[in-house]
Amino acid sequence: MSGQPVVGIVMGSDSDFNVMAEAANTLENFGIAFEVKVSSAHRTLAGTLAWVKEFEKAKGKVIIAGAGMAAHLPGVIAAATTLPVIGVPISSGALQGLDALYAIVQMPPGVPVATVGIGGARNAALLAVQILAVADPDLRASLQAYRENMAAEVEAKDQALAERLKA
Amino acid sequence: MSGQPVVGIVMGSDSDFNVMAEAANTLENFGIAFEVKVSSAHRTLAGTLAWVKEFEKAKGKVIIAGAGMAAHLPGVIAAATTLPVIGVPISSGALQGLDALYAIVQMPPGVPVATVGIGGARNAALLAVQILAVADPDLRASLQAYRENMAAEVEAKDQALAERLKA
Amino acid sequence: MSGQPVVGIVMGSDSDFNVMAEAANTLENFGIAFEVKVSSAHRTLAGTLAWVKEFEKAKGKVIIAGAGMAAHLPGVIAAATTLPVIGVPISSGALQGLDALYAIVQMPPGVPVATVGIGGARNAALLAVQILAVADPDLRASLQAYRENMAAEVEAKDQALAERLKA
Amino acid sequence: MSGQPVVGIVMGSDSDFNVMAEAANTLENFGIAFEVKVSSAHRTLAGTLAWVKEFEKAKGKVIIAGAGMAAHLPGVIAAATTLPVIGVPISSGALQGLDALYAIVQMPPGVPVATVGIGGARNAALLAVQILAVADPDLRASLQAYRENMAAEVEAKDQALAERLKA
Amino acid sequence: MSGQPVVGIVMGSDSDFNVMAEAANTLENFGIAFEVKVSSAHRTLAGTLAWVKEFEKAKGKVIIAGAGMAAHLPGVIAAATTLPVIGVPISSGALQGLDALYAIVQMPPGVPVATVGIGGARNAALLAVQILAVADPDLRASLQAYRENMAAEVEAKDQALAERLKA
Amino acid sequence: MSGQPVVGIVMGSDSDFNVMAEAANTLENFGIAFEVKVSSAHRTLAGTLAWVKEFEKAKGKVIIAGAGMAAHLPGVIAAATTLPVIGVPISSGALQGLDALYAIVQMPPGVPVATVGIGGARNAALLAVQILAVADPDLRASLQAYRENMAAEVEAKDQALAERLKA
Amino acid sequence: MSGQPVVGIVMGSDSDFNVMAEAANTLENFGIAFEVKVSSAHRTLAGTLAWVKEFEKAKGKVIIAGAGMAAHLPGVIAAATTLPVIGVPISSGALQGLDALYAIVQMPPGVPVATVGIGGARNAALLAVQILAVADPDLRASLQAYRENMAAEVEAKDQALAERLKA
Amino acid sequence: MSGQPVVGIVMGSDSDFNVMAEAANTLENFGIAFEVKVSSAHRTLAGTLAWVKEFEKAKGKVIIAGAGMAAHLPGVIAAATTLPVIGVPISSGALQGLDALYAIVQMPPGVPVATVGIGGARNAALLAVQILAVADPDLRASLQAYRENMAAEVEAKDQALAERLKA
Repeated sequence: MSGQPVVGIVMGSDSDFNVMAEAANTLENFGIAFEVKVSSAHRTLAGTLAWVKEFEKAKGKVIIAGAGMAAHLPGVIAAATTLPVIGVPISSGALQGLDALYAIVQMPPGVPVATVGIGGARNAALLAVQILAVADPDLRASLQAYRENMAAEVEAKDQALAERLKA
Repeated sequence: MSGQPVVGIVMGSDSDFNVMAEAANTLENFGIAFEVKVSSAHRTLAGTLAWVKEFEKAKGKVIIAGAGMAAHLPGVIAAATTLPVIGVPISSGALQGLDALYAIVQMPPGVPVATVGIGGARNAALLAVQILAVADPDLRASLQAYRENMAAEVEAKDQALAERLKA
Repeated sequence: MSGQPVVGIVMGSDSDFNVMAEAANTLENFGIAFEVKVSSAHRTLAGTLAWVKEFEKAKGKVIIAGAGMAAHLPGVIAAATTLPVIGVPISSGALQGLDALYAIVQMPPGVPVATVGIGGARNAALLAVQILAVADPDLRASLQAYRENMAAEVEAKDQALAERLKA
Repeated sequence: MSGQPVVGIVMGSDSDFNVMAEAANTLENFGIAFEVKVSSAHRTLAGTLAWVKEFEKAKGKVIIAGAGMAAHLPGVIAAATTLPVIGVPISSGALQGLDALYAIVQMPPGVPVATVGIGGARNAALLAVQILAVADPDLRASLQAYRENMAAEVEAKDQALAERLKA
Repeated sequence: MSGQPVVGIVMGSDSDFNVMAEAANTLENFGIAFEVKVSSAHRTLAGTLAWVKEFEKAKGKVIIAGAGMAAHLPGVIAAATTLPVIGVPISSGALQGLDALYAIVQMPPGVPVATVGIGGARNAALLAVQILAVADPDLRASLQAYRENMAAEVEAKDQALAERLKA
Repeated sequence: MSGQPVVGIVMGSDSDFNVMAEAANTLENFGIAFEVKVSSAHRTLAGTLAWVKEFEKAKGKVIIAGAGMAAHLPGVIAAATTLPVIGVPISSGALQGLDALYAIVQMPPGVPVATVGIGGARNAALLAVQILAVADPDLRASLQAYRENMAAEVEAKDQALAERLKA
Repeated sequence: MSGQPVVGIVMGSDSDFNVMAEAANTLENFGIAFEVKVSSAHRTLAGTLAWVKEFEKAKGKVIIAGAGMAAHLPGVIAAATTLPVIGVPISSGALQGLDALYAIVQMPPGVPVATVGIGGARNAALLAVQILAVADPDLRASLQAYRENMAAEVEAKDQALAERLKA
Repeated sequence: MSGQPVVGIVMGSDSDFNVMAEAANTLENFGIAFEVKVSSAHRTLAGTLAWVKEFEKAKGKVIIAGAGMAAHLPGVIAAATTLPVIGVPISSGALQGLDALYAIVQMPPGVPVATVGIGGARNAALLAVQILAVADPDLRASLQAYRENMAAEVEAKDQALAERLKA
């Protein structure tokens, strides 16, 4: 996506891109410029914090952070910026994402993370679009169209199933 | 708070105001006009949907919705608007808010709810401010001041504990 | 199944039909006319509410609703009708149906959903038959036969296992 | 309530009446004759099964069964009748009702229990009324009135809170 | 195993024999006569209760009962006899045996079930042997030999791993 | 209780006696001689193992072990004897007994612990009596009487509630 | 405690000192110099990181970090140092410490936190002493004495209970 | 690894070596001599305790213990030594390691186990190295290099992903 990134998609490991790619694709569909960053709250903490500062300076507006297990990445980023941070818990290992969900959503008072469901990369991107649309009526119209399209798909599937059952 | 409300705080029951009042107070501190609404996804579904439409028309920008148990209110509101919806799970009954957390955060693809921690009304308000600050540099400066104040409080408590332990 | 549908089987996504087909088959075995509907509480909320009103007018009597994750469909339908609504939690995603179970069963006072086990589509249909049988002695006799048949199957399996172990 | 009982309210221990009384009160409000029975699936299994048979003969129509811990009462009753059985998980002991919820809702295929939320005695009664209303238009009108009354209460609370916040 | 059965192995479905066969094999190794029964607390409740009475009359001494989901079989059997009943939770469906564990172990005061781990059919058999060995010194000697054999196996594996790591 | 103890009641801390006293009282009611021992798997491991050996030599027959948190006491005792060991998970600390339940019931193949519910000291004692009754017809008759008494109590409570509701 | 601190006790909020004081007291009993610091991973992230660097320079050797909810403090400190970091999950809010446990123990590969039980401040201090004792035989002797003392206390309680039961 | 072992890696079953091998490999990379032992807290309790005493006498310094299900091995070893014991919960069976986590981390006051995440064998080894490095500046330098290497790998993956997305 060309242009100055307004959304940053950060993840703790490149293997998380399996999940987070859906956020990138969704932003692309809305024509929103974004940046993808692999950076770890534990292995490259200083680098993560430096990236946040750069992203802020470059007029970035929303950050999406995905992480698994004791998922500190979204919270650490939220501690380092006042931009809205959206957290995506990623299912990984024995606790299947419940650890990541708790570690992201249960932030202490003062530093919120806007948490979506486990593996919810698409919803994270849509939430970023909804946030940007607060000050952008065109984007809001796109969201409205997206919703209508989604509704039409459900109705088409309803029709298709009805046909199949009749047959 | 005078002026046209830009944030709507909705809750399923007036008893939820014990928790949600902290969202109202926080918005007040930032000088953001808000509206408080008791409306239930189950008992007054039509009324809830009507309120969302009015709030949109009146140029409202962000909705905070708190609910307990099988907490459908944030999701139902999110289904009826493309404004960002922030969900606050409220601890109530035997499952102590875990039911509400799951019912709010695990939204299906297409309709996100920005979920905060159980009982996290203050964080919901701060998230709303962060969303509004995306297009409002003054508000972002206020957030920065809020953060610095919070840090100063932690440092003061650190000092106080150190004094106490010396004594 | 010909005739005016007395049971409506609704699901949030056509992929849920993998699970919900068993409800349809069970109703068919009892000779009960039913209707299958794909409609989402989040993606087609207005359409869902409209369908409920139509189903009521058409003298429908019981609704079975299956949904996964933050499963709002049964509760939203229950909020829109006084017909008995049976909810089927569907296992989907990282929390494997526990999210759906909580989101369906933990309804607030005033608007019940008759919840069956995770993936319990057959039991949902049998419950619908039991509800209809309250005013239909023939149907109750069919249920009695179904139970006796089921018991006979268990006894046959007991015999078969005994044979196998003797051999 | 005078008249032949159409609903049976069974509970495993008289201490459960703290919770189950709300079911009795709700049925009373709808003018539905009911019977209250203390009977245990474990301590008086034979007595429980005998009661079910009597209740069936006496033209009883719906059974509500509440139990805590390894709550077998609703399932055992459901195994002994084809009447609709509504299960109420009761919070008791260290697992706070989660054990009862699982033990009631996760019935194997063939024998459903219509489960409501933990402690959901009022909803159990309303579900019984909804089931009886399938064949009773007057009762359905009463349910409609009940819903409207409930909605009016929510709206009154919304008004009251608005007044309080203005003051 | 010839001779009058002293242990009864009951299971709710013949598919549970995949797990419960290990109990049978273990008893066979100890030369204990046993009986295998498929009988369901929900589908063949009367048959289950009749079997318990027969088993008691035939001088059976210990019952092992395995079941999944809302596993009522061990508790219902325990309610119908004063023989020791050993419960085996079987993993089945979305909750992977946690439902069965709770439904078996959390029995109310007065009617215990001796619960082993999820899928713990071998341990159930060993527990039965330990119970029978209370009054049978020969059997206790066999248990002692079994334990020593098990310890020797662990030591052999320790040796084998040490060899492998040296190589 | 005079006479050579046949049941040993062990607990990790004297504070556990609040729960375990019910086991002692129940055994007393059945006239079974028992011994109470405070001994910790972690703080006095050698002492615990020595006690087990002495109890075995003194012709003890069944051991009841209660413990909280990472409750190793029942398993460690079971590892040191072939007598039947009954484990009582005790609720203590933040996880309210779920940690103790898992740590007691999920024993690996080869070394079973007969687990009762969280806080189930009375059921542990009854299970010990049932085990002893396998070789003691008089004790089995006492158990039968105990059950009948318990059933009579339930029936009395049923009567009392019926009276209360009539009034 | 005079002398250069070798253990740092950090906590996210001064209210955590209710729990963490036990760590301080235990270290004091072993004569180990320590430092207490209130510093938050979210509210004073930069200050926390600066403190870690100072503590390292001042020849500090072990860090104990206690935190509640989405407890990032231990993990963030572990990311900033190669000193051993001991994490204490603190029970706080609706999830009663389970969120903190997951957020502390489930660290990704490369950056461990030595986690103790929920509220386990005393054990955290003992673990710090055990770590320091690896290179300090005197300290190891003190630990041995501490253990013997603890065992003697258990035995005294066992005696006391035996006396009480005799009386 | 030649030389006198300073770290002991113990596991309850040789099948646990699938997980624990990563601990061995990591120690090897740091040039730390270690010993691998298969020994069970339940099947070879006496052997386990004997090994701990030998390891202590041979100047071993840190023990890593991995176990699944009701994982008593780390706690039993910790009860028998004052050396630091690191516990690794291993996912096994229906509860997927949650049972092992609780059974290892929730140790009672007085006997700590330094717990790492489920399956966290690599982190256990790194923690052992960090503990040894408290008195060994060279080892601490190696840890520092390990961390820098890990950070470089994250940065390389970030670069690689950026390249891939540009293409």
